[in-house]
Amino acid sequence: MTQFDKRNITMMMDFYEMTMANGYFQDHDKDVQVAFDVFYRANPDKGGFAIFAGLEQIIEYVENMEFSKEDVEYFRQQGIFSEEFLQYLENFHFSGDIYALPEGTIMYPNEPCITVVAPLIDAQLVETAILAQINHQSLIATKARRIVKAANGRAVSDFGARRAHNMDAATYGARAAYIGGVVGTATVSAGQMFNIPISGTMAHSWVMFYKDEYTAFKKYAETYPDATVLLVDTYDVIHSGIPNAIRVAHEVLEPMGKRLVGIRIDSGDLAYLSKRVRKMLDKAGLEDCKIVVSNSLDEFTVTSLLNQDACIDSFGIGERLITAKSEPVFGAVYKLAAVGENGEFAPRIKVSENIEKITNPGLKDLYRVYDADGHAVADMLAVCGEPIDLSQPFRYVDPVKPWKNRVFEGCTIKNLRKLYVRQGKRTEELPTLDEIRNYVKQQLENEIWEEEQRFENPHRHYLDMTPAYYELKMELLSKTREEHA
Amino acid sequence: MTQFDKRNITMMMDFYEMTMANGYFQDHDKDVQVAFDVFYRANPDKGGFAIFAGLEQIIEYVENMEFSKEDVEYFRQQGIFSEEFLQYLENFHFSGDIYALPEGTIMYPNEPCITVVAPLIDAQLVETAILAQINHQSLIATKARRIVKAANGRAVSDFGARRAHNMDAATYGARAAYIGGVVGTATVSAGQMFNIPISGTMAHSWVMFYKDEYTAFKKYAETYPDATVLLVDTYDVIHSGIPNAIRVAHEVLEPMGKRLVGIRIDSGDLAYLSKRVRKMLDKAGLEDCKIVVSNSLDEFTVTSLLNQDACIDSFGIGERLITAKSEPVFGAVYKLAAVGENGEFAPRIKVSENIEKITNPGLKDLYRVYDADGHAVADMLAVCGEPIDLSQPFRYVDPVKPWKNRVFEGCTIKNLRKLYVRQGKRTEELPTLDEIRNYVKQQLENEIWEEEQRFENPHRHYLDMTPAYYELKMELLSKTREEHA
Repeated sequence: MTQFDKRNITMMMDFYEMTMANGYFQDHDKDVQVAFDVFYRANPDKGGFAIFAGLEQIIEYVENMEFSKEDVEYFRQQGIFSEEFLQYLENFHFSGDIYALPEGTIMYPNEPCITVVAPLIDAQLVETAILAQINHQSLIATKARRIVKAANGRAVSDFGARRAHNMDAATYGARAAYIGGVVGTATVSAGQMFNIPISGTMAHSWVMFYKDEYTAFKKYAETYPDATVLLVDTYDVIHSGIPNAIRVAHEVLEPMGKRLVGIRIDSGDLAYLSKRVRKMLDKAGLEDCKIVVSNSLDEFTVTSLLNQDACIDSFGIGERLITAKSEPVFGAVYKLAAVGENGEFAPRIKVSENIEKITNPGLKDLYRVYDADGHAVADMLAVCGEPIDLSQPFRYVDPVKPWKNRVFEGCTIKNLRKLYVRQGKRTEELPTLDEIRNYVKQQLENEIWEEEQRFENPHRHYLDMTPAYYELKMELLSKTREEHA
Repeated sequence: MTQFDKRNITMMMDFYEMTMANGYFQDHDKDVQVAFDVFYRANPDKGGFAIFAGLEQIIEYVENMEFSKEDVEYFRQQGIFSEEFLQYLENFHFSGDIYALPEGTIMYPNEPCITVVAPLIDAQLVETAILAQINHQSLIATKARRIVKAANGRAVSDFGARRAHNMDAATYGARAAYIGGVVGTATVSAGQMFNIPISGTMAHSWVMFYKDEYTAFKKYAETYPDATVLLVDTYDVIHSGIPNAIRVAHEVLEPMGKRLVGIRIDSGDLAYLSKRVRKMLDKAGLEDCKIVVSNSLDEFTVTSLLNQDACIDSFGIGERLITAKSEPVFGAVYKLAAVGENGEFAPRIKVSENIEKITNPGLKDLYRVYDADGHAVADMLAVCGEPIDLSQPFRYVDPVKPWKNRVFEGCTIKNLRKLYVRQGKRTEELPTLDEIRNYVKQQLENEIWEEEQRFENPHRHYLDMTPAYYELKMELLSKTREEHA
């Protein structure tokens, strides 16, 4: 067993989860039911939305939580935990419920994308693992979607593994990128684990290994006559790479009845080169040869290239996708929303000087409101279980402008979240990755306003409240402020 | 076995490694010996150096490379590989040699931090896994060092797991951060796997769970009287958190003969709050109570806080360390340097319009040159095995200004790299993580100019060449340019 295989994912936690858990255990509070919400506060890259991703891994994780004898021994060595607590850990299994958005749901700031309802210790011990998974995959899915949108129908592939923040980032990052709309990945582990189409042809080293570029191209074409894509920038794209590629197309592939599938440019001025190359290929009768480009691209450079009429059929996106370079932090947090008291859930609120950092307390339902054309006009928080009747004009509160009197008329609503884990076990079969990917696409094409999808100053999606929920929040807020002012 | 445990790290590769390998196999080139160099081109954050990290994991990886029957079947299903090649994979083990800098070495752009000398297929199949490991850990180690330097002797801890790019990024990122100088981590998996000191106290949820802040603090102090650090910003630092912390110090801890170890502030204006809080604590006789701060900090905010005379003893650094937010890509590349021909290694060069992207060809030695005081004045590339005598003034070439006539006088040199893997197996026991961390510290304190360590416009470390190596490179460059112009 390698060092890499020895990991127990249950140990991917912040140590404070354990110090708190031991404290709760000693106070006999461990079985009090609580609710924690996962939500984020701002869309990456000043965008209009984010894509919820990583749920499958969270469910896999909570179902399999356990501490080995070695793990418990590690905690014992810290010298601060009671023996009863350590014995309790040996038999620990997550026994809570998890409500979540379906994976791939378009989500917005301050909405509870996940709610964990569980005994206090159970809820506390899953915090960091859930956040790391959601933060990573939602970040990459959202970034991928931006690049796919910029590519405007052209294929985008993930080439990022070597610049990923280690192995999981490459593998789960490729999964998230596929959810966001890339057509495939170069990362084999991701292809194998998640059935994502994989692609790959040659590195500069292939070209440099052979005595000259023509020989290198010829060998590749002979080996893969049905899928020859040649990397043309090892020496000089215009004076060497493309002439040699054209020669291979004519002298090697065409006698076999094959066509040159594509060429790839990985450096230089891609706008200029792609236009020059397109003309050279067309003149040689290779109008069907695709031009693939790669080299530190993202949604901004892709947009710029296409604005310059670059002749590009396909983009390979590496480091700026797999690290979400322009904004590599997705800031989802895990906040206590309610505590079980006398058989009911008493709401909790986290106050702050900054009004946007005040949490939404209590158990609640999250609805998406659609107009008659099926467009999502807003999301709305309601008290958990509160009946909502949209057959009549429905008055709601915009919490940013609560003095305004607003109504939904002629709208329909959908309760956005489902119960995915009940008492520690998944409640249903999860969708396939392709189903998740299609769900993203369907929402963005049919439900989400185009104005929310633009990069520059996108329309802000409203998170409204039912009057009852708004009242609950305001009452709790003033009560808490009185107690701590 | 969970989804997470099913990964085979050998499959963390780019698919082109496999298409090339199959091509080499068919041409009977697979056993040709080649040399690949790993190097990077620019220091992160416009800094003066980087820290080489991740070597232990690379060695663990190459020693354990293997394809399972399921892996080979996955490749078979791609429908493009020969059956002989697939059978060859079933018995594949890495059989090459790896030369590298000792882990923790201060390194500079364009230096070969690793050279893989191996049969062609072996060398090609390790590319992406090596790069991902070096790129991630060197990135985080370098970033950590910058933050530690800014903290100017105060303790810095890694709190980043929840914002890491998935589980490995949290775990190996904590390892790298420790190499870079943090005193510990909150990430339990990293503490357990790498024997890094772990720390953790409470989240806001602890405070919110109890009926009031005082009760929450009291419970914590009773549970951990020797290590009470209280999070004071759940409601209001000045009007609630600190008064309650002081009350607990006096009413709970002092009757037990204990002291309040610290308080932590996680939001708000940390400069203002820390100064106010220091005065309040001192006035209450708690001069020994440490002030810990956290909240989206990095080397720039830490510098700013200390410039404002903030009263801070310890920093918890989260997202901006674990993602290296200001520059989350470390761009190490893997380039063919030489190919075995007739029992010798023929150098290969990758040309480019950009002179800084031209590779350093051939097998070579990398030396660090020290002055009489032990300061590293430059690094130098030499032809592999070239004798170097520094007992006499030694003429060298600055490749950026080759026309200058320069000499090292009264200097000593050290061959920076060692053979770590011979024919697929490690040659020696690796240093412990603490030894690596101390090695970083020792170099930065004794060998590396302070001017290279500043953040603003640091002094550039020279990478010089022996005349023989410079000549080799120039000859190969003009030959290659003639052939491809």
